Amino acid sequence: MYQADRVELAHGGGGRKTQQLIKAVFQKHFANNILDQMLDAAIFDIAGSKLAFSTDSFVINPIFFPGGDIGKLAVYGTVNDVAVSGAKPYYMSAGIIIEEGFLLEDLQRIAASMALAAQIAGVQIVAGDTKVVEKGAVDKIFINTSALGVVRAGIALHPAKIKPGDAIIVNGSMGEHGLVIETSRRAFTLATPVQSDCASLLPLAQVMLQFGDKLRCMRDATRGGLATTLNELAVQSGLTFAIEQELLPISPTVVGACKLLGLDPLYLANEGKLVAIVDPDCVDALIREMHLVKGGENTCVVGRVTCDLPGMVELKTLLGVWRVLPMLEGEMLPRLC
Amino acid sequence: MYQADRVELAHGGGGRKTQQLIKAVFQKHFANNILDQMLDAAIFDIAGSKLAFSTDSFVINPIFFPGGDIGKLAVYGTVNDVAVSGAKPYYMSAGIIIEEGFLLEDLQRIAASMALAAQIAGVQIVAGDTKVVEKGAVDKIFINTSALGVVRAGIALHPAKIKPGDAIIVNGSMGEHGLVIETSRRAFTLATPVQSDCASLLPLAQVMLQFGDKLRCMRDATRGGLATTLNELAVQSGLTFAIEQELLPISPTVVGACKLLGLDPLYLANEGKLVAIVDPDCVDALIREMHLVKGGENTCVVGRVTCDLPGMVELKTLLGVWRVLPMLEGEMLPRLC
Repeated sequence: MYQADRVELAHGGGGRKTQQLIKAVFQKHFANNILDQMLDAAIFDIAGSKLAFSTDSFVINPIFFPGGDIGKLAVYGTVNDVAVSGAKPYYMSAGIIIEEGFLLEDLQRIAASMALAAQIAGVQIVAGDTKVVEKGAVDKIFINTSALGVVRAGIALHPAKIKPGDAIIVNGSMGEHGLVIETSRRAFTLATPVQSDCASLLPLAQVMLQFGDKLRCMRDATRGGLATTLNELAVQSGLTFAIEQELLPISPTVVGACKLLGLDPLYLANEGKLVAIVDPDCVDALIREMHLVKGGENTCVVGRVTCDLPGMVELKTLLGVWRVLPMLEGEMLPRLC
Repeated sequence: MYQADRVELAHGGGGRKTQQLIKAVFQKHFANNILDQMLDAAIFDIAGSKLAFSTDSFVINPIFFPGGDIGKLAVYGTVNDVAVSGAKPYYMSAGIIIEEGFLLEDLQRIAASMALAAQIAGVQIVAGDTKVVEKGAVDKIFINTSALGVVRAGIALHPAKIKPGDAIIVNGSMGEHGLVIETSRRAFTLATPVQSDCASLLPLAQVMLQFGDKLRCMRDATRGGLATTLNELAVQSGLTFAIEQELLPISPTVVGACKLLGLDPLYLANEGKLVAIVDPDCVDALIREMHLVKGGENTCVVGRVTCDLPGMVELKTLLGVWRVLPMLEGEMLPRLC
C-alpha cells in the first residue's frame, strides 16, 4: 500500500522518484556547489589538483550472475562513474557489510573478483571497512565503493556544453545487464544465453577524451537505462534528445525476452555502456577510434540533439512516428546494481 | 552454532577475529603498499599532494540514541579517521541504503543531522548514492561515508615512530558510546543518564599536530574500545603499552552499569575519543593545549610505552598487579557503529 510518508522501492529505481527523494532530502540538507552539479562524479580542486570522486552502494540480487558478480560490479560501477567524468581513477575504498552466516568461500570469490577488476582498471583498493550484522539484518552482502581519480588536463565534460545538432552515440547493445538479473531471479531460461555487459569503460573513455571539447559529455547508462540517462541530460542541457529505434543496438534475444517479460530494454540497466554527446564534425573519426577499443566495437550513432521539445527525449519508432520517451517513473526492477 | 566456513558476528567486532577475516580475505586479495599499512586512513600522493582517504559503513542499532543518531555518527566517524591520520578532511561521500517503508520524517532527521555534523567539521558532502531495498533486505538504514583530506605539511604519524618511554594519553572518559547503545537496546534505564560521546575530533587533532614529530601517532578508540586500539598499536610498533587502571578516566556511572551488565568499559566503543602516543618531554605542554579545546578538557596520561612484553598491552589493576590486556577476542556487542 502506498504511503506518502514512507520511502518506497520506486525511490530507488534511479528514475524520477529517485530524483524527487534526493532533491527533497539530500540536496535540501547537503546543498553545496559541487553536489548541486549532480554529475556522475563530484569534481573539485584539492591542493591544486582537479579530482573526480564518486560513490556507489551495490545491493544487487543475485550476487552471482552470468557475466559477473557483486564484487566485479562494485569496482567497475564506480570506476565507470569516474571514467565518464573525464578522469582516470587511481584509488578506491571498499565498505563491505556481510550477513552473519555468509559463506567464507563466497566472500573469497567476491574479494578475488574485486581484486581482478581493480587490476584491470588500474586502481588500488587502499581503504576498507568490514561490518558483520546479524542474520536477517542485511540480505547476504552489500558493498559500497568510492573512487578517486584525476581529471585529464583541459577536460571539463558537462551537459551545459551540449549543442543542437550534436550526435548521440552509444558503445553497444542495450539492456543485457538488467535482463540477465531479472531472468536469473525468475529462473527464466533464455534460448540464447545472455551475459551481463559489466565491464570497465575506462579504456574507451580515455580514448574518447582525446577529442577534447568535441566530446561534450558522457554518462554510463545504468539504473533506469538509456531512456533515463538521456532524460537527465535533456533536463540538464535544456535541449531535446531525439533517438531512432532503427539505430538502437538491441540484440534480438533481448528484444524477444523483453517482450515475453513485459520489459522495455531502453529502461533496463547497463553496466558497461556509455552514452556520449559529440560534435557532429568529429563523430565519424571518434567512432572509428572507438571501434578499435575493447568494448567499443559496436559504437554507433543513435540520434541527435535538437531543440524541438526542451528538456525531453523523443523516440522515432519503427513506424516512423515520433513519441516522447519519459524518464523511468518508478521502479521497473529493484536491486539491479 | 559455530561453523568454520561461515562469517560470524564476531568477525565484525573490531577485534582479533575481524583482523583475521580482513587478513585472510581482503588483505590477501587487495594487497598493496598503501592498504598494507592498515592505518585509520589510507595516505597517498595524488597529483603531487599528500592525501588521507577513509571509509566506514554505519549499521548501528538503534539509529537514534542519546547523544546522536546514525547520521551524526556516519559523518564524525569518518571525519575522525581522517583527523587522527594527521589530515584535515574537506570532502565526503555518502552512500545510503534504505529499507522500503522507512519513514521519510526519520530520513529527513538523519539527513539534517549529517548536514549539521558536516558543517561543524567543515566538510562538504559532494557525492552521494541512494538505494532502496525491499522490506527485510536491510534493517532500516545503513550509511557508508568516505572522506578525503589533505595531510598537514611535515606530518607523518605512524606507529613505527613510537619509542619506549613515550606517554599514552586519552582525551576523556571511556565507554560512553558503547554503553549508551547497549542500554538503549535493552531498554535499561541508568540512574544517571549517559550520552554517547559522538563528536568531531578534528579541532583537537589539529591542535595536537602543532607538536610535529613529538606526536608519534593517534587513533580513535572505536570498535573494540581502548584495549583493542592499544593492542593494534602494540602489534604495529612491536612495543608494550602499559596503562594503569588508576589513571583511566571512566565515569562512576559507566563503571556501575558495566558491572551490572557484565561489560568491560575498556572494550566498549567510543565515538569521540582518541588515544595518542607522545614524546614525554612535551606531554605536559600538549595536555595544557588540549585542555583548552572543546572535547579535550579531560585529557590525561593513562600510561606509557615500554619494551617489557613486545606487542602486548599491560594493565596495572587497582590492587597494583600488572595483567595482560588482550585484544577483543570476538564480539562483545554487535552493531555499535
